[in-house]
Amino acid sequence: MGRVLIIGAGGVGTVVAHKVAQNADVFTDIMIASRTKSKCDDIVKAIGNPNIKTAKVDADNVKELVDLFNSFKPDIVINVALPYQDLTIMDACLEAGVNYLDTANYEPIDEAKYQYSWQWAYHDRFKEAGLTAILGCGFDPGVTSVYTAYAAKHHFDEIHYLDIVDCNAGDHHKAFATNFNPEINIREITQKGRYYQDGEWVETDPLSIHKPLNYPNVGPKDSYLLYHEELESLVKNFPTLKRARFWMTFGQEYLTHLRVIQNIGMASIEPIMYQGKEIVPIQFLKAVLPNPQELGENYTGETSIGCRIRGIKDGKEQTYYVYNNCSHKAAYEETGMQGVSYTTGVPATIGAIMFLKGIWKKPGVFNVEEFNPDPFMEQLNKQGLPWHEQHNIDLEL
Amino acid sequence: MGRVLIIGAGGVGTVVAHKVAQNADVFTDIMIASRTKSKCDDIVKAIGNPNIKTAKVDADNVKELVDLFNSFKPDIVINVALPYQDLTIMDACLEAGVNYLDTANYEPIDEAKYQYSWQWAYHDRFKEAGLTAILGCGFDPGVTSVYTAYAAKHHFDEIHYLDIVDCNAGDHHKAFATNFNPEINIREITQKGRYYQDGEWVETDPLSIHKPLNYPNVGPKDSYLLYHEELESLVKNFPTLKRARFWMTFGQEYLTHLRVIQNIGMASIEPIMYQGKEIVPIQFLKAVLPNPQELGENYTGETSIGCRIRGIKDGKEQTYYVYNNCSHKAAYEETGMQGVSYTTGVPATIGAIMFLKGIWKKPGVFNVEEFNPDPFMEQLNKQGLPWHEQHNIDLEL
Repeated sequence: MGRVLIIGAGGVGTVVAHKVAQNADVFTDIMIASRTKSKCDDIVKAIGNPNIKTAKVDADNVKELVDLFNSFKPDIVINVALPYQDLTIMDACLEAGVNYLDTANYEPIDEAKYQYSWQWAYHDRFKEAGLTAILGCGFDPGVTSVYTAYAAKHHFDEIHYLDIVDCNAGDHHKAFATNFNPEINIREITQKGRYYQDGEWVETDPLSIHKPLNYPNVGPKDSYLLYHEELESLVKNFPTLKRARFWMTFGQEYLTHLRVIQNIGMASIEPIMYQGKEIVPIQFLKAVLPNPQELGENYTGETSIGCRIRGIKDGKEQTYYVYNNCSHKAAYEETGMQGVSYTTGVPATIGAIMFLKGIWKKPGVFNVEEFNPDPFMEQLNKQGLPWHEQHNIDLEL
Repeated sequence: MGRVLIIGAGGVGTVVAHKVAQNADVFTDIMIASRTKSKCDDIVKAIGNPNIKTAKVDADNVKELVDLFNSFKPDIVINVALPYQDLTIMDACLEAGVNYLDTANYEPIDEAKYQYSWQWAYHDRFKEAGLTAILGCGFDPGVTSVYTAYAAKHHFDEIHYLDIVDCNAGDHHKAFATNFNPEINIREITQKGRYYQDGEWVETDPLSIHKPLNYPNVGPKDSYLLYHEELESLVKNFPTLKRARFWMTFGQEYLTHLRVIQNIGMASIEPIMYQGKEIVPIQFLKAVLPNPQELGENYTGETSIGCRIRGIKDGKEQTYYVYNNCSHKAAYEETGMQGVSYTTGVPATIGAIMFLKGIWKKPGVFNVEEFNPDPFMEQLNKQGLPWHEQHNIDLEL
């Protein structure tokens, strides 16, 4: 049906490449590009499909991107590079006439601040160009937003309270490691918390609000209120929401490590002069920490991510919990990557399938909850992220 | 009486420069040299004595050192550079005919292992050259070794049990900082513990043995058994010792920070490749952490370091505790440096006074406990580190 270009050869890129290759009926031509071409070649070798093309591209460089797009002529780009690079890739898509999909919203490299405004500002240009841009099509954001849209469509007349709950109950058997890019991970967690209530955003001190929540097949885990990017689009697209929050589990050891990393200055994004060269501490730390892509091998346990929703159906209050549990080991066996990469890469692939099948295709820039959730939900079950639902249970929230 | 060359312009070098300048009757000509000449110039400016000379020298480079020694012609070098540089400076002393004093024993830069053997091996050469080398003349090693010699001389016929107790009850009001070169500090603490008992060294897991000890004017502080270098020479020079141990206080927060620094790989001395350049994580961490020399300004509280000794006098068991308490604030007001630098720099200065007065002058390489402790103990009271003693108390050990 169409040609796909994957930009980014990290853990998520590896999963996307595997899943895209598994869906050869949809993806007729595949290319993986990243700053380091050898990483792309390694992925192709692991998949064992010599028809997948590879290329070197600097995703910060619009001209390089446009040249690549013009030579490979993809129908859609799956951007699983760094969030800093969303805008250059979108610029190149507009210039070369390519559709766009990503999994995380744009964030300036020198500022720990992420919001959709920068990307939403591209809406008119994509619309005029007749191009589709699908934002935030990983698991969270992504599947959690589709879950919400599905719940709103089928199980509620009005959704009032949304709690996205993200538990990683895996064990990588390292003293400390982050599950994705440590730079992004640490920046996300060390910022202030924020949630939406009665039309306003309420700010909280970092990790100051937490409570134990029970996760299916996992049990109780202390869960911390964080700001997470899908809240921004969900409260806009579901205006009946009175409250929307995001919770993530962390162990005490993880939080202790994080606190110390901040105290010693290694979480800093301000460069210091070292031996005559500017070095950003958190980027150096990333180079010292275990590579998240190499955690897979001994990773046990599972992730459990879902939406807990309360609202009204036929005049009566209802509760609904929809979630997926993903085994790190199964993810590793299928793709060589752990569950955190897997749960991000599979939805990105499904999003591209939706686009190429013409189901999620409308000119402009959209968040995933603005599309029909049903065919996406169907694909989740087929592509390795089956979901489960519970009705009228105690949401604990 | 003599010409002194101070090598090293860190916190300890700054204190030595101040104290040497205060003893103009002994030190007729003074030079401070370091890799960065501007640091030496800053010290001279702070002291306000324009007669102090400064020079740039790379203490890893024997030829540069010899050239400097031949031009300034010091009677003695006070080495307060890095422990990695002891041997190059001793080599240069032999070549240029200069006497030598240091505060910490030699340690190879690429191996967390310190012992006196490397420096003791210079004994015959110093002896034949008619030169004196005084090793380990800071506080610990240094004053603690002199305390032990003083106790053995005046209060015991035989000393049997020695516990050196080192408490820093200061507060620098930073989330985390080390009190001296963090690289050396972290290497010292993360190694296995070791103590001497019945003629043998007993090894312990790092920080695995600890107990609360009461320190004068401070109160109880959890104290950890460490290996510390003066134990090596003391058990050799006081063969009646049945047991010798070293204890240092650490707060839980300090230890947590240390554990995390190790877990995340930032205590490593193995270089990693970063942006095409080899960088040693612990050296980069040093550049990110607060500079120990800049902790002084708001440092409150005091250090309390001493020796707790049990032995026999006139056939009866005796206990003896000799110690100094040093106020960080008073040290800062006098020298611009906190107490940890002060308690190291003052004894180094006294050692040089002992040498230039001809009291501690004998060709060869010696640890401080091999000299007459009495005139040194007298100087401690005069130079800002007064000592106190308690007889027949409960040593808690």
